[in-house]
Amino acid sequence: MRAEIVSVGTEILLGEITDTNSSYLARQLPSLGIDLYWISQVGDNQSRLVEVLKRAWQRSDLVLTSGGLGPTEDDITREAIAEVLGEKIGVDPSLEQGLRERFSQWHMAMPLSNLKQATIIPSAKPIPNTRGTAPGWWVSRDDRIIVAMPGPPAELQEMWQREVRPALQQMSEAIILSRVFKTSGLSEAAVGEMVAPLLSSSNPTLAVYSKADGIQLRLTAKAASQKQAEQVIAEGEIRVRELLDRYIWGTDDDTLETAAGRLLIEKGLTLSVIEDYSGGWLAASITDIPQSPVFFRGGLVACSDQAKIALGVDEAIISRYGAVSPEMAQSMAEVARELLKSDIAISTTGLLENENEPAGVTYIGISDGENSRAIRRSRGKRRVTTTALLELRRLLTSSN
Amino acid sequence: MRAEIVSVGTEILLGEITDTNSSYLARQLPSLGIDLYWISQVGDNQSRLVEVLKRAWQRSDLVLTSGGLGPTEDDITREAIAEVLGEKIGVDPSLEQGLRERFSQWHMAMPLSNLKQATIIPSAKPIPNTRGTAPGWWVSRDDRIIVAMPGPPAELQEMWQREVRPALQQMSEAIILSRVFKTSGLSEAAVGEMVAPLLSSSNPTLAVYSKADGIQLRLTAKAASQKQAEQVIAEGEIRVRELLDRYIWGTDDDTLETAAGRLLIEKGLTLSVIEDYSGGWLAASITDIPQSPVFFRGGLVACSDQAKIALGVDEAIISRYGAVSPEMAQSMAEVARELLKSDIAISTTGLLENENEPAGVTYIGISDGENSRAIRRSRGKRRVTTTALLELRRLLTSSN
Repeated sequence: MRAEIVSVGTEILLGEITDTNSSYLARQLPSLGIDLYWISQVGDNQSRLVEVLKRAWQRSDLVLTSGGLGPTEDDITREAIAEVLGEKIGVDPSLEQGLRERFSQWHMAMPLSNLKQATIIPSAKPIPNTRGTAPGWWVSRDDRIIVAMPGPPAELQEMWQREVRPALQQMSEAIILSRVFKTSGLSEAAVGEMVAPLLSSSNPTLAVYSKADGIQLRLTAKAASQKQAEQVIAEGEIRVRELLDRYIWGTDDDTLETAAGRLLIEKGLTLSVIEDYSGGWLAASITDIPQSPVFFRGGLVACSDQAKIALGVDEAIISRYGAVSPEMAQSMAEVARELLKSDIAISTTGLLENENEPAGVTYIGISDGENSRAIRRSRGKRRVTTTALLELRRLLTSSN
Repeated sequence: MRAEIVSVGTEILLGEITDTNSSYLARQLPSLGIDLYWISQVGDNQSRLVEVLKRAWQRSDLVLTSGGLGPTEDDITREAIAEVLGEKIGVDPSLEQGLRERFSQWHMAMPLSNLKQATIIPSAKPIPNTRGTAPGWWVSRDDRIIVAMPGPPAELQEMWQREVRPALQQMSEAIILSRVFKTSGLSEAAVGEMVAPLLSSSNPTLAVYSKADGIQLRLTAKAASQKQAEQVIAEGEIRVRELLDRYIWGTDDDTLETAAGRLLIEKGLTLSVIEDYSGGWLAASITDIPQSPVFFRGGLVACSDQAKIALGVDEAIISRYGAVSPEMAQSMAEVARELLKSDIAISTTGLLENENEPAGVTYIGISDGENSRAIRRSRGKRRVTTTALLELRRLLTSSN
């Protein structure tokens, strides 16, 4: 099945919003076995939208639109679809009743303009919208489908997951499943060499990607049923893990934060952080995961000598070794561990990039009470928080 | 001038990356007086790219492409443009020499495949790429222009700002300048009423937007020269400020962090923060601004009772008022102020959304040594950090 996405809205063409609906839908299609060939964005202009939809109707089996279903004059997606198909648009009594009920629940009179959202054409069926007043349209004619969805991402995603995706899944001939393996400590080339025997497999396929938090492998299976696809993935996973299990720190939606958190919880250990260079990003990324209250004891942000001393760092360390030194990184980790009473503490040090001095280094300190050590790394806040979490993982897995 | 954007890359169609180049370019065009009519994304498939580019060449005066300029087989933008224009593509000796010099600076042999990046057609001039090996193309023929730029956003943005934007600016008949005013403390409707006399002006125009950090107004002037446009903006700004100066906290690229930082620096005051609910985001957003070392004394992240007590919060406050209370917010602010020795401290409290209890509240505490108070707000980490910064601003401006 050959698909095309059309996003409607002048605010996209003005750059006021980024069209994230397209990338959301694009990510969803491969697992349905649907090939996406084109994406386009067009403004709230009926003749240009009609031109784009006519072409899509000719060349694609499935057209997904987002936006242009609101109640105002410049919401023109319904009218444009009706024009492309040469069908008459009219108010559907049951849609109208549903809309009126919704407004009366809100104790509001329905503005006349909202009647637009109760219109339909003969080839279309309404798709319920649980999050807004604009129903979608499922248009089916001549072996082709147009699915019109609302523009607000929360409404589109809910409609997609509840209604559109299950309907497309039923029509799909093949099930496609993927599993992502996330590694650290290896280069892309090294991973490629290690899994070379699997790269030529046609089902499952294996692909290697370089990401900010390390090299990833994506295993993809295609099969006639969910069960068969799961079987192909499971067999593939065994082979991947035979080759590089010890470098894999997570799968699929795992992040370094969730993976490290899981290890800490398994071992019953607690964590605290103290940040100079990363300025709070490490604490913020850890507190963003729902499990953090179980293991996270707290964070300290100390970018100046004064703040470090106020929190308990020995002034002599600063004068003897400087604020960016392995000794300081270790000392900071020990201070956080004691002050916040955690089993393990991590620290980050380093001068900010805007200082007048050549590209320098950062140090990450880690302490578990028995040992403390510092790791030297190049700059970049995100890279330093990533390294800090990888070092934490290394500590937790090596003490197995 | 009628423009169109074409982004090239199969990874966009797979949803692996979001096409942010399009929205970046879309935002740039209005100030050049260029109207954007279409955006489309197409995969690394030459026949489909040729189809899209042919249509663009017919209907648009200016076509901006991004992506597909790499050294590999599936980088096909150059070849597709050559095919659309029916021109012969060949290696340009000076481009080849430049590439070879770059590789020799890196002490690397140039792979043969990189020769692709030294190719050109008669109607194209190369555009220097200071951040990568792929030069852009400026294609000019039959009163139409194609500008081909590399896909990595850092390379595209640098090439756009250094080369493409200035060249388009020279061709533009009108200069368009904008100024954004950022307000707080007013609803969109209230701002609309206050500036009503200006909303009907056709030059400069004034538009009102609702954003996460408050209501914004965009003043836009169109004129034949930069100087005239600046004059129109300056006159418009006087009228805007007459109507709502005291609600404006910043302009253009100002953020709440930079605006608050500027006020603190002006007054010679220092700041610290202590976070429960916002878990480090407030410290992270403050340390992200380059001026923060001047005024920021440090941050504490204390999401558990244990951490709060370890940092010096009186246990009695927790038992008497609870961890989410105005008293706790004030007490935390006082603790941070003393521990980190700052003039002012802000705190955030509140239970995380994933707790099993109905939607609740958060409290923001603020203390300047003489007074401390707490502000009750609804949830959302970003909303709470925004409110915290607005409250800081309120304190700083009221003590004038």
